[in-house]
Formats: sequence, structure tokens, C-alpha cells
Amino acid sequence: MQLRPIGLIETPFGSKADCPRNGRQIQPPPVCTVVVEAAFRDGLAGLEGFSHLILLYWMHDAKPMDLVFTPPFDAEPRGIFATRAPWRPNPIALSVVRFDGFDGPGRLRVANLDCVSGTPLLDIKPYLVTTDCEAEASMGWLSPHATRAPV
Amino acid sequence: MQLRPIGLIETPFGSKADCPRNGRQIQPPPVCTVVVEAAFRDGLAGLEGFSHLILLYWMHDAKPMDLVFTPPFDAEPRGIFATRAPWRPNPIALSVVRFDGFDGPGRLRVANLDCVSGTPLLDIKPYLVTTDCEAEASMGWLSPHATRAPV
Repeated sequence: MQLRPIGLIETPFGSKADCPRNGRQIQPPPVCTVVVEAAFRDGLAGLEGFSHLILLYWMHDAKPMDLVFTPPFDAEPRGIFATRAPWRPNPIALSVVRFDGFDGPGRLRVANLDCVSGTPLLDIKPYLVTTDCEAEASMGWLSPHATRAPV
Repeated sequence: MQLRPIGLIETPFGSKADCPRNGRQIQPPPVCTVVVEAAFRDGLAGLEGFSHLILLYWMHDAKPMDLVFTPPFDAEPRGIFATRAPWRPNPIALSVVRFDGFDGPGRLRVANLDCVSGTPLLDIKPYLVTTDCEAEASMGWLSPHATRAPV
């Protein structure tokens, strides 16, 4: 199970200390760019018309796996699978981003990212409201810590 | 960028031919089980209270990468990144599943899966309505092909 980068992500965040807790914490969200390598650009055909995408990317700079830890904004230890922290067994991150069109060949303008500039891109998927949207979902221990600014 | 399986997924689907197009096509969805290896079970602490999870899993049986193809239910060639088909550069699949609690140590009861039984599990993330739900998202070329049954 070997991965290969298909491109990289450009954000305004030069270091981990600059990154927001999630891609919707800063409002309005800054413009980010997804740069897809030339060898994979044919796979972008038909992406126009989707308003949102799911990006998978590799947390190349994450600290080693830590299965249980106490989040800085919480008092209790939590299991890694009950969080979105990067020090997972497989450090793959996921963000639902707004897609604002192409900015050149293989260059996608997106919003709502939280990662360091230069992060390796693994996959782009169309966001499907029919299978990916659960508006009534409950958030367990994270409920009191919701960060989304009012739209 | 090397992955390791953290468990596997048990579904009623014994072969690719048995699998639905997505995990919400069969209503009511059959019960599936996520089995997390003992070495990673401490990471499940705090998962209770989340109604939905995001699962990442490895499409171990996918055919080789194909960047452009014509979906069976469509007339035009589409880029792989505008689809959820498994023959991607990195064959990682993603499903938003309903979480129905634990069924033993490291055994999670879930609904809305589409994969072959025995599929290697890569990650479990909590589904966060604050960052993962985009109820107004538009679906591009897939709009006329929506499969979600009326709830």
C-alpha cells in the first residue's frame, strides 16, 4: 500500500504554527491553490460544475503516531480516531473545500484549507451532497468546541 | 508515504459484482462491521456520541489507474478526479457512514458502505457537520445520476 503524490497544495500558511485549527476558522477563508502534476491532469476533465471537492493530502510533517492524547482545548484524553489530529496511524488528512475554478492548467483555486504550504496532494474527489452530507450529524465530545463562524 | 492497514471492513458483499454503486443505494442499508486491530483500539476512545464517521479504506482489488473513462451510466468520458471510481492514482476510498455503536472490543456497527468484505481499513475520522457538511453543494455532471433514495 504505497502512495504517490499527485501534486501539492499552496496555502498562505508557511509553518504549522500559522495554520488554523480547521479550514473554516478564518472567515473569509484565504484563497489556496491545488497544483496537479502534468502527468495526472487528464484526470481533471469534468470537474467544472462541482461547487465543492474533497481533498486528501499527506501530513508529511506530523509528529509520530499518538493513539491517545489530550487536545489543547479539552480536559480529557481522547482517542485519535475521535479527533482529526494528524498524528494518526496513516497521516492522511481530509478537507471539504469550495472549488472556485481553474487558475491555469492543473491549478485549482480552492477555499477552506488548513495545511502548511507545500503539503503533498494524494487525491481529489467530487463532493456529493447525496452521500457526503449529513446535516443532522451529532458531534460527540466535539460539540462544545465547534469553530464554524456563522455564515 | 507508506500505509498500514489498521483493520478491515466486513460487509454482505462478497465480490465486486455484489457491491452497490454507493453505500446509500440499498435502503435500508445493510449492517456492516468495522474491525479494528487490537494494536490500534486505544485510538477509539471518545468515539461514542458521534452519529456519523468518515472511513478511509484501500481499494485493494481495483484495476490499474485509468485517468479518463466513460462511466457505464453516462455517455461522455470523465476524468477520474470528477468521479469516485476506484482506479485512481492512489486508490483510497471514502465513505460517510452511520455509526451504530460498538459490537464488541474494536468492532463498530456501521451503515452505508459499498465495498467488498475484507477491504483493508486505513482510517476512522469523526464526521463534523461544521466542516464536512455542504448542503447546497452542486454536483456537476453527476447531478442527473443521483442515487440517494428518498429518506
